[in-house]
Amino acid sequence: MRLDVYFGAHSVTSADVQGRVVVVIDVLRASTTIAVALAHGARTVIPFESADEAVTRSKSLARGDYKLAGERKNQMIPGFDLGNSPREYTREAVEGKTILFTTTNGTSALIAVQPAREVLVGAFVNFTAVSAMLRAAARAQSDLAIIAAGSDRHFSLEDAVCAGRFVRSIRRGITDVSMNDGAQASVQLERRYANDLPRLFAESAHGRALADMGFAEDLATCAQLDGYPVVPVYHDRQVTKLGPDRER
Amino acid sequence: MRLDVYFGAHSVTSADVQGRVVVVIDVLRASTTIAVALAHGARTVIPFESADEAVTRSKSLARGDYKLAGERKNQMIPGFDLGNSPREYTREAVEGKTILFTTTNGTSALIAVQPAREVLVGAFVNFTAVSAMLRAAARAQSDLAIIAAGSDRHFSLEDAVCAGRFVRSIRRGITDVSMNDGAQASVQLERRYANDLPRLFAESAHGRALADMGFAEDLATCAQLDGYPVVPVYHDRQVTKLGPDRER
Repeated sequence: MRLDVYFGAHSVTSADVQGRVVVVIDVLRASTTIAVALAHGARTVIPFESADEAVTRSKSLARGDYKLAGERKNQMIPGFDLGNSPREYTREAVEGKTILFTTTNGTSALIAVQPAREVLVGAFVNFTAVSAMLRAAARAQSDLAIIAAGSDRHFSLEDAVCAGRFVRSIRRGITDVSMNDGAQASVQLERRYANDLPRLFAESAHGRALADMGFAEDLATCAQLDGYPVVPVYHDRQVTKLGPDRER
Repeated sequence: MRLDVYFGAHSVTSADVQGRVVVVIDVLRASTTIAVALAHGARTVIPFESADEAVTRSKSLARGDYKLAGERKNQMIPGFDLGNSPREYTREAVEGKTILFTTTNGTSALIAVQPAREVLVGAFVNFTAVSAMLRAAARAQSDLAIIAAGSDRHFSLEDAVCAGRFVRSIRRGITDVSMNDGAQASVQLERRYANDLPRLFAESAHGRALADMGFAEDLATCAQLDGYPVVPVYHDRQVTKLGPDRER
């Protein structure tokens, strides 16, 4: 089976994901936020490329049933209910709600991979849960693609390292895996940061930017390995969860 | 000063290179071939995105003055004089000639970075010569961008490792360097392969593909560190050299 890692959603073509099981990673912060929202009982997360599209969709829903959510340049969008800080997605805020979600990088990555057979959303907070699904797919000889979404078209260290962790987990005990150079590189990068996610965020440009903007506590949330063990699945243009609710 | 590494020419925007000193790396094989051609006395190398454009330009030149050169899918283009194998670019073949050159990845990377202040072509075969230029630019507080051109829109291990080697060299003795995540990652990757380029090519997808197609000797040429110490400069849509001819 093939196991390929791509850096940047913009570099992915239909042929790269067609028929594959795909995981989209945007650790800081869209993937983490989606996992936290679903773990706290959000009914569904619907990604939109633009804020306008999210607002348009909201008009077909009852006011109490949805939250307008997302960011531009890391900040909440004026008039929206929630930003892209996972700590805002408490059970009180999101339980039973439809989250209409738009972010700079993570949501466009989800939209780019629609030709895939199955699309999961991965981060450190739901690593083992998503990894179990990917390992099962690999054992069934499904080809896999991991999209390290990156930031503003460019490579992000934290997404690459998370991708490398998935690659390492998937390969364990599975022979006959063909990897592209992105997968090879992500495994090398992961070795350096495997047990020190705070250091990873301190050395990544986006991590430093978030800390500078006052989101240091978000970084601590994003580093909670397996803290929100849900499997977010993107299907019919929305993300719902396979895993259990987090204990209340 | 800024020192950024970008993976894939397609991910580079004008803003990323505007006003900077840029080096374009396509180790297998366009950058290596350009360095070898210039070291062997080629007058100039003119990159074209398509074979048709190269043929059209050839009609304005005397038949003895040029070579049509390049590849598609690693193979020579029908009717052309030279492929993309650096070993074909002997002094006998190229001295005094204009090389009309088109390759799948390397030439489009050169064309993408035209807003740069200065564009160099780097590989392992001319590493120290190009590195000296980059270090001089860095000491003069020029911002630098290194383009690891990659393959078919995707990340290439060998280009990333060569980029990391440049980053390591540029940073030595220079304080106050701001790097993007691509630069951080390339340094990590370079550590693994620094002293074993044959292993690097054996682990890279493009290296393995070239070996399978019968180009194993090309890999040996591409691994000749400082074997062809010229500084290719891309200016006015052509590449000429700053360094001396290789000894005859």
